[in-house]
Amino acid sequence: MKELAVMNMTEMMKSMPMDDTAMASMDMAVMQECMEACNACMQACTMCAGTMAGMEGMGKCVSLSAMCAEMCQTMMKMMMHPMAMSADTMMPMLQATMAMCKACMDECMLHADMSETCRMCAMACEAAMMACEKMTASMS
Amino acid sequence: MKELAVMNMTEMMKSMPMDDTAMASMDMAVMQECMEACNACMQACTMCAGTMAGMEGMGKCVSLSAMCAEMCQTMMKMMMHPMAMSADTMMPMLQATMAMCKACMDECMLHADMSETCRMCAMACEAAMMACEKMTASMS
Amino acid sequence: MKELAVMNMTEMMKSMPMDDTAMASMDMAVMQECMEACNACMQACTMCAGTMAGMEGMGKCVSLSAMCAEMCQTMMKMMMHPMAMSADTMMPMLQATMAMCKACMDECMLHADMSETCRMCAMACEAAMMACEKMTASMS
Amino acid sequence: MKELAVMNMTEMMKSMPMDDTAMASMDMAVMQECMEACNACMQACTMCAGTMAGMEGMGKCVSLSAMCAEMCQTMMKMMMHPMAMSADTMMPMLQATMAMCKACMDECMLHADMSETCRMCAMACEAAMMACEKMTASMS
Repeated sequence: MKELAVMNMTEMMKSMPMDDTAMASMDMAVMQECMEACNACMQACTMCAGTMAGMEGMGKCVSLSAMCAEMCQTMMKMMMHPMAMSADTMMPMLQATMAMCKACMDECMLHADMSETCRMCAMACEAAMMACEKMTASMS
Repeated sequence: MKELAVMNMTEMMKSMPMDDTAMASMDMAVMQECMEACNACMQACTMCAGTMAGMEGMGKCVSLSAMCAEMCQTMMKMMMHPMAMSADTMMPMLQATMAMCKACMDECMLHADMSETCRMCAMACEAAMMACEKMTASMS
Repeated sequence: MKELAVMNMTEMMKSMPMDDTAMASMDMAVMQECMEACNACMQACTMCAGTMAGMEGMGKCVSLSAMCAEMCQTMMKMMMHPMAMSADTMMPMLQATMAMCKACMDECMLHADMSETCRMCAMACEAAMMACEKMTASMS
Repeated sequence: MKELAVMNMTEMMKSMPMDDTAMASMDMAVMQECMEACNACMQACTMCAGTMAGMEGMGKCVSLSAMCAEMCQTMMKMMMHPMAMSADTMMPMLQATMAMCKACMDECMLHADMSETCRMCAMACEAAMMACEKMTASMS
């Protein structure tokens, strides 16, 4: 199943009609890396929110993780809609996603020692943040 | 049913634990207005995407509307998670939402004459954009 | 702002191309009521999840509310995509939404006495459940 | 990046507090396979909707793909919230997801010959449908 999933992403990107859009000059390898990192962060944050829910004092962690999942998911979907792509909309959303990943990573790092879930969520947030930064650089 | 929905929003906001958060000094009327405008924009954009899908040449309109719906929804949810609120995460997301609302409004205005759906979507985008701007100002 | 939001829903539904779809014979008043109830439930559940997130022993409440919000939102969006509508896909999703609303309502009712947020969330879940049931009946 | 994503899913599942929940007896390998298939289907359907958006006559394909993405995403998230898990809520949502995957697959297969995107979307829908069926069987 995992092979199928990865195959789909790479193969499907080839069939996306990038030529007709403002993003024809996009670095596709960088964009795919950013999609994958956003997707992994969405999964990690969702699991973190689902796991820490109801633990005393973890309200900020749960809420940040839930919101970070939403934003990474939206960021990924933007990169899957070639006709809607433009620097005007993508650059601010990349900034917003990086800011949220940073906040969620910082919070989860506070309890990474006692929670393996939080430690892995923080790692996924950092990877997504770096991938969004690389994507931003490639568009500048 | 409509009265119930509006009642819930106003009443439930009173029960949100804002006091314990960085947003204790938030202007609640401005925030509620922003939530309502983001929600209305999410609905209008979803209907626009669902209505224009498959119309020749409307790919940009459909994709922008679908992405604008996602972002407005996420923006609204952020305002419903008091423990995750901070200027660090909300200000960039307000910027990103405004940029997407502007792009979607501009695109939908191009065919507002021939499509009532697009005209109303553009109006909802404009209202959300203005509410996000007011929210940004109230936090500055 | 509230008037605008409600106006949009009613007005935009008129511009949706229902005639070309399998749902031409749909009771539009019942469908709009269902959309509004699902939207209100999505808002109430999101606020409930955001409010109870870090309260000890509230993990089930938070997780059910977050999932109920997702499902009500998806249910509403299905009703905004006329070209994707069919009894084959809508009937099972109505069933799934009703089951989740029931579970979330039952859980939130357990602490309705001590939490106004939960009490209102339970009410919104019940309203959405009843609106989905009415929608199901209208399609049978 | 891809290795990291897959590692996260497997590793994070180990740290999820399944023991305390109704799902302690769940077959974790089957559940992870279902999560991965739902995630891959969400990605494939999102790309399909984003690619076909403005092609004449593809409205049904675009709308079904967008809704199938929403449902697969919600289905996956349900499996990441152990405290909300119960047969009462998961069984109907598995049914609803299978029904939507079937509808989207059938539609995309109609134009698989002329669109590589649709062909891959249909394959991802079929894989998700089968994974949901396997998950349903494991819970019965």
